[in-house]
Amino acid sequence: MSKIAILGFGTVGSGTVEVFLKNKSNYQKNMGQDVDIKYILDIRDFPDSPYADKLVKDFNIIVNDPEVTVVAELIGGNTFAYDAVKQALEAGKSVVTSNKELVATKGAELLKIANEKNVSFFFEASVGGGIPIIRPLQQCLMSDVITSITGILNGTTNYILTKMIKEGAEFSDVLAEAQKLGYAESNPEADVSGGDACRKICILASLIFGRHIDPEDVYTRGITSITKEDAEYAANWGGVIKLIAFAGKCGESLEITVCPSFVPLESQLSGVNDVFNAILVKGEATGEVVFYGKGAGKYPTASAVVSDILNALKHGNKNLSWEERSDENHVVDYNKQKHRFYLRLEGVSKSKIKELFGEVVFLSRKNALEDEVAFVTPVICVEEFEKKCSDLYPLGKIQIMD
Amino acid sequence: MSKIAILGFGTVGSGTVEVFLKNKSNYQKNMGQDVDIKYILDIRDFPDSPYADKLVKDFNIIVNDPEVTVVAELIGGNTFAYDAVKQALEAGKSVVTSNKELVATKGAELLKIANEKNVSFFFEASVGGGIPIIRPLQQCLMSDVITSITGILNGTTNYILTKMIKEGAEFSDVLAEAQKLGYAESNPEADVSGGDACRKICILASLIFGRHIDPEDVYTRGITSITKEDAEYAANWGGVIKLIAFAGKCGESLEITVCPSFVPLESQLSGVNDVFNAILVKGEATGEVVFYGKGAGKYPTASAVVSDILNALKHGNKNLSWEERSDENHVVDYNKQKHRFYLRLEGVSKSKIKELFGEVVFLSRKNALEDEVAFVTPVICVEEFEKKCSDLYPLGKIQIMD
Repeated sequence: MSKIAILGFGTVGSGTVEVFLKNKSNYQKNMGQDVDIKYILDIRDFPDSPYADKLVKDFNIIVNDPEVTVVAELIGGNTFAYDAVKQALEAGKSVVTSNKELVATKGAELLKIANEKNVSFFFEASVGGGIPIIRPLQQCLMSDVITSITGILNGTTNYILTKMIKEGAEFSDVLAEAQKLGYAESNPEADVSGGDACRKICILASLIFGRHIDPEDVYTRGITSITKEDAEYAANWGGVIKLIAFAGKCGESLEITVCPSFVPLESQLSGVNDVFNAILVKGEATGEVVFYGKGAGKYPTASAVVSDILNALKHGNKNLSWEERSDENHVVDYNKQKHRFYLRLEGVSKSKIKELFGEVVFLSRKNALEDEVAFVTPVICVEEFEKKCSDLYPLGKIQIMD
Repeated sequence: MSKIAILGFGTVGSGTVEVFLKNKSNYQKNMGQDVDIKYILDIRDFPDSPYADKLVKDFNIIVNDPEVTVVAELIGGNTFAYDAVKQALEAGKSVVTSNKELVATKGAELLKIANEKNVSFFFEASVGGGIPIIRPLQQCLMSDVITSITGILNGTTNYILTKMIKEGAEFSDVLAEAQKLGYAESNPEADVSGGDACRKICILASLIFGRHIDPEDVYTRGITSITKEDAEYAANWGGVIKLIAFAGKCGESLEITVCPSFVPLESQLSGVNDVFNAILVKGEATGEVVFYGKGAGKYPTASAVVSDILNALKHGNKNLSWEERSDENHVVDYNKQKHRFYLRLEGVSKSKIKELFGEVVFLSRKNALEDEVAFVTPVICVEEFEKKCSDLYPLGKIQIMD
């Protein structure tokens, strides 16, 4: 008999309980043993819940109960969740989590404890919601060398950008609508700033790089300054604007960035719209593989959590792990990277632009302002580009995905 | 020390040897043990091969060598390959294969032997080449109920249809070009007849249904009768023609078909072009997830084979299995299914068409023949539809993907 404890009875927590209990008899048949949820931890009261008998408020009950072999941490954040996960692992219990902040910042340390205690620490639900990505990546990593990952990893920003592109709407209007529809939180900071996507790409990057990549080391830019004019110029260029998270090996270092990008229509990622996520994995032998689906939501995320729970019960410790962050920074400084850029300026002559940036490609849009000019630069070092931009006061400045 | 034997030194076989030997030191580090390829079986001579010392022609050498723990069958077909795989499993060796014909027709039997002998029988490379699909599906299946799978599973036919659509070319011309470019085999029968896609959907269907689905029980139609006129009407309808393999649960039965279909532009599958494959998995909790990539090719397929080899070495028997086909046929008779259909007729009046099929949607194309008429029917039972068609001598007849 294996007992499970669920930490957090919010959206994902209650979804996990529902999915698990609905399919429990299948799981028991499949595992050849009784499995059940014994505790649900939450500080709130749910007097009318059908699971009232499982609800507890004291984590010590769980961590001290030897019957509990798997703990699912679905609270989020980095304070109570961190302590609870660490205690559970140290008590010899496997832990599964959907908490991207926790994995992105403390993953190396928690994996190390899990490996020492020979228990599992799984986090399939932390990236891509119900899209299977962590395990397929482990599979690919086993046989092949993964060279890069490019992803649309945040559904809220992708919904906002899709609306802006399709309806020619402004960022602030679409955000307000998304909040009304429940696609964006009342505090949308983590989404629109790129912070959420950054945590997710850090988890994937740590896996392919074998060394902890801290969100603080990653150049991250959100979508708050994107305008409908930029979207129009992107269309004229032959693409769309997406918030792209990228991690690519570069010898012994790693290039990793999160920023809005012009994505050419030929790219598989250009057609990923609304709240959908997609992750493009490039391997030396495998070539390009794309994983696509809803990157969030109660039941998709819950199904990934349950899948991790069952894996932890069935197969025990099969953690991949990565080394802790060393003092040496392995992330390439964004200023030293080379990219092409889209720029939108006001009152700067085309001859001056050519003088500054060389062979640029000029773009056009309907109803452009008289002294507005937009173009795409050749490949240029970011540091040099920023220096040239500093006197130009750009209205729009977006990286090109190459 | 684990030794591996490779059966077949063709495209996939030689790719597997290359990928394995290139990354061998990584694998050894990862597994904590020495791993190597000991034998390569082929009836042909390769006197100049750098692996000449590993080449053997007698399978008995392999099956009788206790050092060999994993056999990779990359020969194809159902005769020698079947005997060899069976012997290897019975000798207590794990087997991995890219052979879709073998798995689709003998999967249940071979999985049973593998489970009895407590060894692995893995076949990730048999569907979707380098796209991870079998294992992610097992993951999803663990926690969720998979209700349907819809796939573009054959790269050759998808390349041909893409060319026909984009260039307004005829089937036979595009096929000839595809053969010249190496995208179609000199004998393209298995591809263009739908037989290859049928084997692949049978493998996926057996997994989600838990019971062996035989290719012979599946309604399969290829793309040889598709014309550029049909492609034009599909565009007017708002879609493209794709060879769609479908398997969906229907109570205790399974609907499973392989046929050209009108795919609406809103579907993720409509944008899957050229030699690419995509597989859309629908789960009760997971929702829709799509796996996309090159469905064939030397190195992508080889990387999937190597991944299976390493899994077999590392984790031992983790086979899913499915029951053997029972006498009772669980596949819903195609004639009893209900679909919408596109029809293209000559010399039939619109009033007659409405009389026969009810509220149809008429389609148009440039340069249509004077007495040509094309339309999409309401949902209709296939048997009834075919009866009505029998006197009409359709020029084009294609199912709608709903």
